[in-house]
Amino acid sequence: MSPNRSRGLIPSHIIEAKRDGRAIDADALASFFEGYLAGDVEEYQMSAFLMAVVFQGLRPDELDVLVRSMVDSGASLDLSNLAGVKVDKHSTGGVGDKVSLALAPLAAELGLRVPMMSGRGLGHTTGTLDKLEAIPGFETQLSLERFVQVLEQVGCAMIGQTAEIAPLDRRLYDLRSVTGTVPCIPLIAASIMSKKLAEGLDGLVLDVKAGDGAFLPEEERALELARTMVSIGERRGLRTVALLSAMDRPLGRAIGNGLETREALECLHGQGPADLRELVVLQAIEMLRIADNVAGGASASPTHDAAETRARVQQALDSGRALQKMVQLVEAQGGDTRVVERPELLAPAPLVVDVRAPRAGVVASIAPRRLGQAVVAMGGGRTRLGQRIDLRVGFELTVAPGDAVAAGDLLGQVHATDEAMAEHGRQALLDAIVLQDTCEPTLRPLVSHRVTAEGVTALG
Amino acid sequence: MSPNRSRGLIPSHIIEAKRDGRAIDADALASFFEGYLAGDVEEYQMSAFLMAVVFQGLRPDELDVLVRSMVDSGASLDLSNLAGVKVDKHSTGGVGDKVSLALAPLAAELGLRVPMMSGRGLGHTTGTLDKLEAIPGFETQLSLERFVQVLEQVGCAMIGQTAEIAPLDRRLYDLRSVTGTVPCIPLIAASIMSKKLAEGLDGLVLDVKAGDGAFLPEEERALELARTMVSIGERRGLRTVALLSAMDRPLGRAIGNGLETREALECLHGQGPADLRELVVLQAIEMLRIADNVAGGASASPTHDAAETRARVQQALDSGRALQKMVQLVEAQGGDTRVVERPELLAPAPLVVDVRAPRAGVVASIAPRRLGQAVVAMGGGRTRLGQRIDLRVGFELTVAPGDAVAAGDLLGQVHATDEAMAEHGRQALLDAIVLQDTCEPTLRPLVSHRVTAEGVTALG
Repeated sequence: MSPNRSRGLIPSHIIEAKRDGRAIDADALASFFEGYLAGDVEEYQMSAFLMAVVFQGLRPDELDVLVRSMVDSGASLDLSNLAGVKVDKHSTGGVGDKVSLALAPLAAELGLRVPMMSGRGLGHTTGTLDKLEAIPGFETQLSLERFVQVLEQVGCAMIGQTAEIAPLDRRLYDLRSVTGTVPCIPLIAASIMSKKLAEGLDGLVLDVKAGDGAFLPEEERALELARTMVSIGERRGLRTVALLSAMDRPLGRAIGNGLETREALECLHGQGPADLRELVVLQAIEMLRIADNVAGGASASPTHDAAETRARVQQALDSGRALQKMVQLVEAQGGDTRVVERPELLAPAPLVVDVRAPRAGVVASIAPRRLGQAVVAMGGGRTRLGQRIDLRVGFELTVAPGDAVAAGDLLGQVHATDEAMAEHGRQALLDAIVLQDTCEPTLRPLVSHRVTAEGVTALG
Repeated sequence: MSPNRSRGLIPSHIIEAKRDGRAIDADALASFFEGYLAGDVEEYQMSAFLMAVVFQGLRPDELDVLVRSMVDSGASLDLSNLAGVKVDKHSTGGVGDKVSLALAPLAAELGLRVPMMSGRGLGHTTGTLDKLEAIPGFETQLSLERFVQVLEQVGCAMIGQTAEIAPLDRRLYDLRSVTGTVPCIPLIAASIMSKKLAEGLDGLVLDVKAGDGAFLPEEERALELARTMVSIGERRGLRTVALLSAMDRPLGRAIGNGLETREALECLHGQGPADLRELVVLQAIEMLRIADNVAGGASASPTHDAAETRARVQQALDSGRALQKMVQLVEAQGGDTRVVERPELLAPAPLVVDVRAPRAGVVASIAPRRLGQAVVAMGGGRTRLGQRIDLRVGFELTVAPGDAVAAGDLLGQVHATDEAMAEHGRQALLDAIVLQDTCEPTLRPLVSHRVTAEGVTALG
């Protein structure tokens, strides 16, 4: 930390101001974060500060200082020499959410540049990196140099976050995970956005989940997270749009890393579940809209635009062109392109067990969190950082909410490593799928709100 | 920590439960504190927990676990072999509060046993230990063995808190002071009461200050602190009474360690300010009432009791018997008994400066906090632990709220080490004493409330 800033900084005064809900001077707060990186502010002082933030929040100016401190703590990509509009997407995480795997090559095929840095699964959700690694040979740990090469050559590149990006975020993230300071909207928003701001983007589409399987299940909190992230992006010159999407049931039919990879590849084949395809399409449309905006393209009437854009996107999927982009990407990152062409080649789990309806009825709901937790319990997710997982395990659903079933009908399949795990999965699936005699499930719209700098629009 | 307890303890779960306001299981909370002492719970986890407590408080059961963990973390005095009723007092700290120095020998003279462990000044208040050390030779760091000997021989003994008592409290206290988690009623109450519970007492009188010069100025918060401490004491079998006393002006006329020692000695001579004497008398009466209660003495009517008890207490002061007890105490702890007989022998500061009224008027108020802070600034108090201080500096007031003065009348004297310090003190005194043309000061009653296990009684 600069001597000027560190001089006179009393960490407990910053903590006390936050505790009491008083505004904190921007310079003082910046030196608090710099002092933390330099070792002048202790871990126990930062954790007390973070807990005070859980209760008192951060003012817009303070949030801006935090985000700036995070970005400036590490390297940023400079993609200004790269032609094209750079747009990425980020999901707050849900059960069965494999959108990124299909969306990145689709958007690249549509002419965008997609420099995507993703995370691993944590909690009850899977992560894009793990799903990519289900493709034999796929290398997610590229140097930043190689990352930019692939991006230039293919139009998209997909890697894990490197240690050079936002080290302050990494340290705070680790500290939060052991001090009960995770579920805090400004801290979550700053963590997500700092990494995206370091990617050298022109635009960003956020997929914010709401419902039982989301990290913030309540719609109101999910909306607040969306608004917070959009305002961080816009404040720092990054065009940002957030869609609030349904996580009151799993997305698509497949849950578990390899199974989700397969379903995403099916989507690129123009197949797969309708809800997955629709969400991929909607996010691609948003990415194109941002690109149009950034490029300042003179647009026709919005309605005309929308229909035309949707047709373009669907065409890219149905024609197999997005799939070919995925082949290029997998090839560039060292993976086996045969599984892209033929997703059924992905390694199956040792055991696949049918789960059948114990009675007749209508599927009232399918609890995503329960299924996500079961994947973790079956060895397909992590309970601590760095843990080895089995990418093959998970669920394939054959029913969706609203479906009527007879006793003995197939509800889904459990993919497991052994009998005990399979039994655990079977029980979880029976628990998660609620059958009732008669019912019309009330489900969230696939996308319920669109959040931009201009405000919130209710959809669906 | 016991292997049984530590097994399965996940510190962040305890922190999260407190953060969310959920009840914490007593065993789990106890193992959290044990884990902290054992190094299994990190400082940054404890500080996050403490910040969550600042916002969410502690339930009575949780507070009990904290107090028990603090007491059990160290040694406790066993005074059961010592004849007589063991009663102590504790003040939450105020400006000019020198009651303990007069009260301990007075109560001993009245037949009680007073095993008093005190602290040093911190913040804007002075501390009993520092005041005792203004008496040349007085030794405050006795072994616990010697402490009990003096107590047996004299009837009272006055030392600093030893490292053997409540080490958990000491560690939490140090952590709180640098993490913005000091002003929290259950944490303050547990810290005070854990030390007193380790003293082997039968009864305890608490002097809880309210007003500008108190650590918790608002009456409502002071009352809550009083109620919390009383309930902790009673829950653990210690008869506890709290008096809420006035700290909207300094107590007595002297502020600063040595000057306060002198005023306390004057009180033992049957002299000194009326408010100081009255507060000493009221607290002595409470100590005697507790002793009566503990001894199960058949009492006459309360009114008769009260008048008789007050007469006994006043007699002990006016007769010089309490003063003789002080002589014995000082002698037993190695101090110079001549200053007890002749308080004016206490070392004066190098510089004594008169401060006079800049205009005619009525003293509307005297701000105690301002004067307490000035004593610290003049070198008579600490801004960090372990700092050397000058016991001679401070203030002697010659006016009290409500007094009318003419321009040029003496307001008080500054006792300082040099001219610059004297000027600082002079300015502080002029700032602190508010003169108005006409006014009837509205002051808090000297003692406004009495708090016992039975409830709160408004007095005055």
